Amino acid sequence: MVKTIDSRHELDKFGQWKEEGRYPYLPTITKTNDNYVTTLENGKMLMFGSCDYLGLSQNAYIKNKSIEAIQNFGTNTYGAQIFCGHTTIHKELENKLAFLFDKPSAVIFPSGMAANIGVLSVLATSEDVIINDRFNHISIFMGAELSGAQLRSYPHNNLKKLESILQQSLDKQKRIIVVDGLFSADGDYAPLDEICKLAKMYNAMLVVDEAHSFGVVGPKGLGVAEHFNLIDEVDVIVGTMSKAVGSVGGFVVTNSEIVQKIRHYAPSYTSSRGSVPAVAAASLASLEYMEKEGRKLREKLWINTQYVIDQLHTHGFSTMNTCSPIIPILIGDDDKTVNVANWLMKQGLFTATMVSPAVPSNKGRLRIGITSTHSIEECKQVINLLQKARDIYEF
Amino acid sequence: MVKTIDSRHELDKFGQWKEEGRYPYLPTITKTNDNYVTTLENGKMLMFGSCDYLGLSQNAYIKNKSIEAIQNFGTNTYGAQIFCGHTTIHKELENKLAFLFDKPSAVIFPSGMAANIGVLSVLATSEDVIINDRFNHISIFMGAELSGAQLRSYPHNNLKKLESILQQSLDKQKRIIVVDGLFSADGDYAPLDEICKLAKMYNAMLVVDEAHSFGVVGPKGLGVAEHFNLIDEVDVIVGTMSKAVGSVGGFVVTNSEIVQKIRHYAPSYTSSRGSVPAVAAASLASLEYMEKEGRKLREKLWINTQYVIDQLHTHGFSTMNTCSPIIPILIGDDDKTVNVANWLMKQGLFTATMVSPAVPSNKGRLRIGITSTHSIEECKQVINLLQKARDIYEF
Repeated sequence: MVKTIDSRHELDKFGQWKEEGRYPYLPTITKTNDNYVTTLENGKMLMFGSCDYLGLSQNAYIKNKSIEAIQNFGTNTYGAQIFCGHTTIHKELENKLAFLFDKPSAVIFPSGMAANIGVLSVLATSEDVIINDRFNHISIFMGAELSGAQLRSYPHNNLKKLESILQQSLDKQKRIIVVDGLFSADGDYAPLDEICKLAKMYNAMLVVDEAHSFGVVGPKGLGVAEHFNLIDEVDVIVGTMSKAVGSVGGFVVTNSEIVQKIRHYAPSYTSSRGSVPAVAAASLASLEYMEKEGRKLREKLWINTQYVIDQLHTHGFSTMNTCSPIIPILIGDDDKTVNVANWLMKQGLFTATMVSPAVPSNKGRLRIGITSTHSIEECKQVINLLQKARDIYEF
Repeated sequence: MVKTIDSRHELDKFGQWKEEGRYPYLPTITKTNDNYVTTLENGKMLMFGSCDYLGLSQNAYIKNKSIEAIQNFGTNTYGAQIFCGHTTIHKELENKLAFLFDKPSAVIFPSGMAANIGVLSVLATSEDVIINDRFNHISIFMGAELSGAQLRSYPHNNLKKLESILQQSLDKQKRIIVVDGLFSADGDYAPLDEICKLAKMYNAMLVVDEAHSFGVVGPKGLGVAEHFNLIDEVDVIVGTMSKAVGSVGGFVVTNSEIVQKIRHYAPSYTSSRGSVPAVAAASLASLEYMEKEGRKLREKLWINTQYVIDQLHTHGFSTMNTCSPIIPILIGDDDKTVNVANWLMKQGLFTATMVSPAVPSNKGRLRIGITSTHSIEECKQVINLLQKARDIYEF
């Protein structure tokens, strides 16, 4: 169920942190400069809470292409794209995505959330079952709910339970398995090789959301499906341009029939404004840039990632099961998590602070985001500060 | 129910039009020039299918502010805004919106759809009922569905039926009435004065979506609630920056408690990337520009609108109940609607072609969008071409 927690108590938690001047959320960025951000609340900080994994949101070539699109097409299109058109840039972006994945067709959405909601709304009916990993992104649960299909879910990466749900769903018209390629709060992969086998065995459709893995994982950076050499076996690939691509917007890459269905029947496509030309242009330029420079950037990203994970393990930190640039530092208690985040901010280190409802209760954590632009020296600073924080706050 | 139609037959309709070379959808715009667009499919056309009601998507001041934001902040922020921050531009935009409506607080979303889904997800629980006009935007139905509340709806603008639903819902913890201020496919207003009375009488909350009316309706262009002088009586105002503002993104303006709830508990805010700096900057610049020049632009817009509606009536066209720059030309049959749209395109006139599922079956129509930048001469061309089309296609 998608329903958010409606609890005074929970809301009070955030209100209390605000009153006490230790609210680590929604910082206001006044300036960005290489790996540093300056915020109204805490001044200049080293940014280690980012999903801009390849640093491309600050890339000069991409910025210029985005600016050019504003000059040529203005700050918006005329209406919903299906009725009022999209620009040549939007069209090229869709063609580029289909080409990269070597699939027949692609369609872009204003957000990854809109993409997940959109594709599930045309894939599934009330005759079908959508089977979710419980740690899937919430937009997948929203799309599943709105599709009218039966919604089942299995504990994170528990394939035994997935198989038993598949067995119980043989009477359904379609079985649709949906998984994140790389899980956004824990940083681990879905075991796509095993999931693909199960999908085949039980004649299920497979949808993989590569939101955090696109640009990051796999030889060409296409994601976890590419890492497992299984792009051909995945029926639908969803992704977003808001992480490694350094822009925003979601996409779906699949066969032409599903894409055409989306264009006329998915409300999150037909009834929501598409990306503005500046955004489509930044995404397209970034994909072009990645084709040339992506491998080099990913090499650097993975060197940094491995270094930080190794160092954290050496120093006895729990990073859960991460195997990616998303590195959770488990702290547990919400209040302590916020205290540690605040202390780090005061020392000039920015990490993302995640407590419930963003993560399960008592699984409060800092989410560290590694990028290809970080230096090993900067990575060392993070390790040092985390050690000091642990000495003070005992986690 | 939000479920889209899952019918081969319906999809074949669009496929057939494609095969026959008369698919009027998703034109690819290669160039924009004043009120003209050039498309790959039909060359240069006079644009009368736009929701850019004040022509601001092509405004030089707004374009420059958007470009400046890319130069200063790059093509994206670092992650979900609640965790990774927003820029001073985003903050100023929220402050400006709260100021314009004279409400305590405002929050921006990546789209109007995300705004409707977001606010309803924190307003309503399973103890509540959400009461919708049946012609409300589909994103309101999606938000209602996801909220877990009971969903009731009444025939378009039928206040007798609305009252009877309110009477039947007195056992609910909260009654939440949601209406579009200006309906997007028919162009008419919600009778907010009467709806406000009913809301008071039955102790119901009132949410108004000013997507198409913001910037267009009311002395300051704040929308239909301002037109009825009822902003203070409306609990939550939703809007979008993708129409008159000439940018994209949604907003919610309301009390601080609801806004704070959204920031931590609405998945479409917490778990979807916010607008990029270029988009927030275009929106902010546009609001600033409208404060100075909006009245003048709206005057011109309404002169054009009145002229076109009067002329259409004089010449015996059905424009349904429109009283706004959204002017539906009812044709009826889907196939005929598409033929007329194609003929007009070949004559160099672009209108939006709406058939089911975008509008009810057999209510196929062209949607004309008037802007403040159109000249009376251009409006005359539209009337002339529509008369010729009617002579040929008999609608």
